[in-house]
Amino acid sequence: MTRAPTHDGVLAAAASIAELLPPTPLLPVEIGGVRVHVKAENLQPIGAFKIRGAWWRLSNVGEEERARGVVAVSSGNHAQGVAWAAKRLGIKATIVMPRDAPQVKLDGTKALGAEVVLYNRPGEDRDEVAAKLIEQNGGTLVHAFGDPWVIEGQGSAGIEAGQQMGRSPSRFIVCCGGGGLAAGLALGCPDSAIHVVEPKGWDMVGRAIASGEIVHAAPDAPKTICDALQPTATKPINLDVLKGRAEPGVTVTDKEVRDAQRWAFATMQLVVEPGGSAALAAALSGKVPLDERTIIMVTGGNADPAAFARTICEPASFKPR
Amino acid sequence: MTRAPTHDGVLAAAASIAELLPPTPLLPVEIGGVRVHVKAENLQPIGAFKIRGAWWRLSNVGEEERARGVVAVSSGNHAQGVAWAAKRLGIKATIVMPRDAPQVKLDGTKALGAEVVLYNRPGEDRDEVAAKLIEQNGGTLVHAFGDPWVIEGQGSAGIEAGQQMGRSPSRFIVCCGGGGLAAGLALGCPDSAIHVVEPKGWDMVGRAIASGEIVHAAPDAPKTICDALQPTATKPINLDVLKGRAEPGVTVTDKEVRDAQRWAFATMQLVVEPGGSAALAAALSGKVPLDERTIIMVTGGNADPAAFARTICEPASFKPR
Repeated sequence: MTRAPTHDGVLAAAASIAELLPPTPLLPVEIGGVRVHVKAENLQPIGAFKIRGAWWRLSNVGEEERARGVVAVSSGNHAQGVAWAAKRLGIKATIVMPRDAPQVKLDGTKALGAEVVLYNRPGEDRDEVAAKLIEQNGGTLVHAFGDPWVIEGQGSAGIEAGQQMGRSPSRFIVCCGGGGLAAGLALGCPDSAIHVVEPKGWDMVGRAIASGEIVHAAPDAPKTICDALQPTATKPINLDVLKGRAEPGVTVTDKEVRDAQRWAFATMQLVVEPGGSAALAAALSGKVPLDERTIIMVTGGNADPAAFARTICEPASFKPR
Repeated sequence: MTRAPTHDGVLAAAASIAELLPPTPLLPVEIGGVRVHVKAENLQPIGAFKIRGAWWRLSNVGEEERARGVVAVSSGNHAQGVAWAAKRLGIKATIVMPRDAPQVKLDGTKALGAEVVLYNRPGEDRDEVAAKLIEQNGGTLVHAFGDPWVIEGQGSAGIEAGQQMGRSPSRFIVCCGGGGLAAGLALGCPDSAIHVVEPKGWDMVGRAIASGEIVHAAPDAPKTICDALQPTATKPINLDVLKGRAEPGVTVTDKEVRDAQRWAFATMQLVVEPGGSAALAAALSGKVPLDERTIIMVTGGNADPAAFARTICEPASFKPR
């Protein structure tokens, strides 16, 4: 049995994380003549916001359970977050990762001391792989988004951003895989609109928000460069928070994502991975409203060097700063 | 006639700049088992610390002089700093830039509304080109480093970093072209050691500190990828501050600089241009002492996309995070 995540839980997570990690920068940028802010979560020690939820979850694992370790499933950023928190807390971590995860994320997870178990992205169900591991060896499952502590931990980014801006954000534009960050922001910042952004063809959360029902990834879903935004479906714990609360979902194309990566490279001097730039892509392509209290979540920067190199060398589709 | 830069001038510059620009992040990193801090000045609005000195200089140009505009010489970052400040203050800016400056810097300077006058890096003396322009059309020279306001403005980065760290920095590791930033830090932070880092073969400041005399670039100086760190010589105003005050200078090779750029890409998610990563290169290659109160200045991120792409695709010479 689990519990529902709460506003107070987000505040508690934010207080815990503030003792652990310096705030990531809130950087002012101008988009379409409007001054907005980018919350640069790609500058976290593991290169992604996932360190927040992982820390909050693992620091709430009971003493007895700690000894049996934790098991997580992740394409790479949650993996590194769990590995980082586990190392810090002295907990053994086993991470189920897709065989096609970017090498940089596989390497990073192993370098943090976690054991990595690979699975095949089309074909095997990663949740089943993890369940089998836990059945065999025990351990606590740390789900990447369908977990109350993980949701609360991710939401701490919104509390931090609001404190840095000195006023309540009007809206968060947020990339969305399973909906952990979006749900956390929605809970943590009740006065802010939440715009979820997903890769084209992978808008299971947007469609779930619209229909009120869980939507599964289509077996013939198109390829996307956003490796971090390809869950099989959101979970009821996320949808319960987001339905009736989030704005209609938005999708972005691979080209819009690459344009955003190149923009972040050239005008912000930031390395952003494809999935981490989805919200920025939506903002740059005019798909979401912008005002002076808007916060764009840039969520991860663990980019594959060769892919990033190709992206930044494409012709610019925007004017220099 | 000019004046000497002062400690109080650095404090005044820091106060002025704090009203204008949010602090750049001070990011914790671990190098060789030691936790140090990186001052990410590449995240300034123009992608480089030069915005500081340019702002402080231009905001101190008298009313009458303002009407005649300002003239600056720069390979690109000072150019953009002056253009940014001039636009903000409504002053006409003319910038003398080398014909081989990175396209991204030429474009950025023009996009900020400055007039660009090109010269040939080997052959023409850029200071003479600027002097001729001023003789013809009038205007105030805004030297890239040999100017008291510019030195004080750059030093504001040290005041800001010390405030962010909450204690006095033991040392600044700082890349060095003409010595504007190094002199500003030396004045602003009298309790901190100053380690200047220059490209191999372009260590005119390190040699000037050692000898007490101005040293000019050798006519046969080797090529360097650090386009931002190729002045012809430091100036007396900089040397007067640094001699007897700065530690012995350190040099870095192109390979060490590229390794540092790749490290910043992969472990910090930062885009750093070659010259901007010289101090990081010195730290990573063990050429300077590190302790927990060390601040490494990462000074600019206006990287040429093709060159940056090549650099990040070279094999990594360090372990993943």
